[in-house]
Amino acid sequence: MFPRNAWYVAAMPDEIAADKPLGRRICGEPMALYRDEHGLVAAVEDFCPHRGAPLSLGFVQSGKLVCGYHGLAMGRDGRTCSMPCQRVRGFPAIKAYPVAERYGFVWVWPGDPAQAREQDIPVPIWWDKPDWAYGGGLYHMKCDFRLLVDNLMDLTHETYVHSTSIGQKEIDEAPVATRMEEGVVVTERYMEKIYAPPFWRMAMQANDLDPDAQVDRWQICRFVPPSNVLIDVGVALQGHGGFHAPDDKKVHSVVVDYITPETETSCWYFWGMARHFKADDAALTDTIRTGQGKIFAEDLEMLERQQANLLHWPQRQLLKLNIDTGGVMARKIVDQLLAAERPGVGAPA
Amino acid sequence: MFPRNAWYVAAMPDEIAADKPLGRRICGEPMALYRDEHGLVAAVEDFCPHRGAPLSLGFVQSGKLVCGYHGLAMGRDGRTCSMPCQRVRGFPAIKAYPVAERYGFVWVWPGDPAQAREQDIPVPIWWDKPDWAYGGGLYHMKCDFRLLVDNLMDLTHETYVHSTSIGQKEIDEAPVATRMEEGVVVTERYMEKIYAPPFWRMAMQANDLDPDAQVDRWQICRFVPPSNVLIDVGVALQGHGGFHAPDDKKVHSVVVDYITPETETSCWYFWGMARHFKADDAALTDTIRTGQGKIFAEDLEMLERQQANLLHWPQRQLLKLNIDTGGVMARKIVDQLLAAERPGVGAPA
Amino acid sequence: MFPRNAWYVAAMPDEIAADKPLGRRICGEPMALYRDEHGLVAAVEDFCPHRGAPLSLGFVQSGKLVCGYHGLAMGRDGRTCSMPCQRVRGFPAIKAYPVAERYGFVWVWPGDPAQAREQDIPVPIWWDKPDWAYGGGLYHMKCDFRLLVDNLMDLTHETYVHSTSIGQKEIDEAPVATRMEEGVVVTERYMEKIYAPPFWRMAMQANDLDPDAQVDRWQICRFVPPSNVLIDVGVALQGHGGFHAPDDKKVHSVVVDYITPETETSCWYFWGMARHFKADDAALTDTIRTGQGKIFAEDLEMLERQQANLLHWPQRQLLKLNIDTGGVMARKIVDQLLAAERPGVGAPA
Repeated sequence: MFPRNAWYVAAMPDEIAADKPLGRRICGEPMALYRDEHGLVAAVEDFCPHRGAPLSLGFVQSGKLVCGYHGLAMGRDGRTCSMPCQRVRGFPAIKAYPVAERYGFVWVWPGDPAQAREQDIPVPIWWDKPDWAYGGGLYHMKCDFRLLVDNLMDLTHETYVHSTSIGQKEIDEAPVATRMEEGVVVTERYMEKIYAPPFWRMAMQANDLDPDAQVDRWQICRFVPPSNVLIDVGVALQGHGGFHAPDDKKVHSVVVDYITPETETSCWYFWGMARHFKADDAALTDTIRTGQGKIFAEDLEMLERQQANLLHWPQRQLLKLNIDTGGVMARKIVDQLLAAERPGVGAPA
Repeated sequence: MFPRNAWYVAAMPDEIAADKPLGRRICGEPMALYRDEHGLVAAVEDFCPHRGAPLSLGFVQSGKLVCGYHGLAMGRDGRTCSMPCQRVRGFPAIKAYPVAERYGFVWVWPGDPAQAREQDIPVPIWWDKPDWAYGGGLYHMKCDFRLLVDNLMDLTHETYVHSTSIGQKEIDEAPVATRMEEGVVVTERYMEKIYAPPFWRMAMQANDLDPDAQVDRWQICRFVPPSNVLIDVGVALQGHGGFHAPDDKKVHSVVVDYITPETETSCWYFWGMARHFKADDAALTDTIRTGQGKIFAEDLEMLERQQANLLHWPQRQLLKLNIDTGGVMARKIVDQLLAAERPGVGAPA
Repeated sequence: MFPRNAWYVAAMPDEIAADKPLGRRICGEPMALYRDEHGLVAAVEDFCPHRGAPLSLGFVQSGKLVCGYHGLAMGRDGRTCSMPCQRVRGFPAIKAYPVAERYGFVWVWPGDPAQAREQDIPVPIWWDKPDWAYGGGLYHMKCDFRLLVDNLMDLTHETYVHSTSIGQKEIDEAPVATRMEEGVVVTERYMEKIYAPPFWRMAMQANDLDPDAQVDRWQICRFVPPSNVLIDVGVALQGHGGFHAPDDKKVHSVVVDYITPETETSCWYFWGMARHFKADDAALTDTIRTGQGKIFAEDLEMLERQQANLLHWPQRQLLKLNIDTGGVMARKIVDQLLAAERPGVGAPA
């Protein structure tokens, strides 16, 4: 189950070409995404009302999505515009989804269109700021999106899964605190007077800081309902205020985890990093992207095998330790969103 | 569901070697096809009555199908002939299927053997005529055989799926008419005063006609129950009578689509072309086969993805437009055949 | 269904490294096998009590199995030993399985631990004898383990499946006798005054016997419950007493078939040969292993396809001929073991 009345990242903008639709299943619903004559993204069910062919196998012509089987032309509202030698007025409509290209991503709203408001799409902190740079990628994961949220809200796994890059023993040992902040679950960890792990040594070097110096390190994970996680991460030269240190004493960035359910047991993982240093260095963006891609691939096997285990033992209860509080609270919010969407549950009067 | 009391193409003759059986599932039933001591094809269940091994993994010896596991020798009637050191008289029989090698194909009757009459196998128009040549191939398709019948009875898809070979805008625009003719569904389309698409330009050239000349083009699709489609196709120099033009003013052929259900959602597609020009030109046969193979491979992805869509949305009704009438009438006939096979339904008195 | 209160071969010893666990499903149960600080093999459920990750993705440290996700350290008794910054006393235990490394294999007891007695693991005849040599391998087979037992208790299949190596017409023709002997099913076949098939010609040559001489050949199959088969095989120069001939007149060995159910329709096949000739010749061990590997791969396709056939026709009865008696009696014993394990069935008073 996934909340439907919510904005999810559907695609990266360059996945949808000018003349070629993209087929993608989101929250269980196969969708065809395409660009109309103005270049604006549209999203409709991936089902031609004529004979049920997937519209995503077709092409875009004059801003309409043309079915590649018999030429039915579909509009962005889910109504058929035309079909050779046919009167199409009586053709049944298919679902059209609210969709918006914002902040470097294409967002879709799988639920009740009447409730979709584009202004609810959260503005990322790095958006439109020239001193930030963003790079990222997309993975398909065969696991419930909530397993990935758990993963990102409990970074003690870095010590084990990512021991050669961002993991270090101190993560395990530092106390962690979780709280709610305006509907967002925040899990924080601060490690003081430590040595930076390989990834951060590289970042310090790139930022003209001595990689061998002692640092204060922070991880501030934010679960933004229904399914995304943004993590403030960084290191500052020891004793300069950590997260609050001046820019020339620290390197910091935001790990971006936009997660979109595909089915009950699979999801799309749009991962990336927005960094607040050397924003003009395109080669560094590529280096980080490559490194991050490797790190997140390490999670992939673990999560898919964890999913398989949970399917094998569906009755087993999992532990909810202090380190799991972020994930547990995130699931509670997801459950509340699901409950609110159940038929018969009205909005407050 | 598929009609069982019917002849289906089971194989091309050269798929069944002299000493090696062929295993193939037809109408849901795994069969072992082999040649007896006279070279005559036999078809039995692919199940050894001894321990259930597939007989198709065995070999043929002295005209019997020998199980490759423990040497049971099976006869073409489904009764065990012998087994080393065993008395086989009491062994349970397996099903034997009426089978016939006719007109360049091996045909099998999966239903009630008492109703099988070889003379009901339809004689193709090109059979035994030296001025016709045939070439073809076999595809496995993961779709209900009726989706392929629909495909072939509505050739407007050529404009989209086969836009670079046989498709052209005029197919979409020409009126289409469908009628019944002695138990066969006939869908006709005539396009006058047009330019030939690439495939037909090639054929005109091969037949010493000017490929740049204006032509009259025809497509006459015939659904022959339970599952085959034969299509008269051709072009004639414009104004010479089209389909009825003299041989030196036209090129024409029959697109052969013998379709055999494998399961509810998969089928065997024996495709080919019988042509009435340059019959002696073996190289041309190969060229056409290669071209046709590419064209029908274009249908494959579309039909398999359409099948997946229909399984995802099982409740949705499809449209039945005028262009779909051929497929709709074909399905009606299939439904009647199925109804007639239901237990308790007698033959007319 | 498989008996659970029994010792099964879980692995070959070198499959479990000092620092890396092995994940393997046995009798339907995913297990993680690893070596503790003494090098002793332990076996626990492949499920971390923290978040359900497979422990087999982790590593071994100080003799504990450490989960590769968040560092929980599991003991060989299925109780958590430690986890960074956590009190683990209340953590739920997971199953720990009795396990023993004996006689060249790792054995596991999936059932009630209270009934497991290591001394019940059968001592192989070749164990600890310097004039015997052993070599073997492991195959995964997608079939019910009982189909493989059937296969090995009826060697008439060698004539067909292994016609180029160990099969010969005389196997089919020689009478076979089956009897019970101290809980073990014994099926014997003796072929006198025959010529050796290729495998045995090679063995005779290796053992300085004339491969062209006439021989007496024997096959004595023993089904050792719940699932293993050991086969005395050999040839002796004709007229010297066959199985009882003096060592310089025969070549003989034991075909070892340790079979472990994975699921209802798949199993692990630990195959090998213990030979009583040229025990010091390591190159010969490799030659035999390679040859045997090829022979048993011939069974693989047959058995997997037989399994698929039996799933397609679940209602069909199979024949139980005299040659099948060994397999039939083996199944009867398996059924008795299963009945004895059913709840409410007590041990004899």
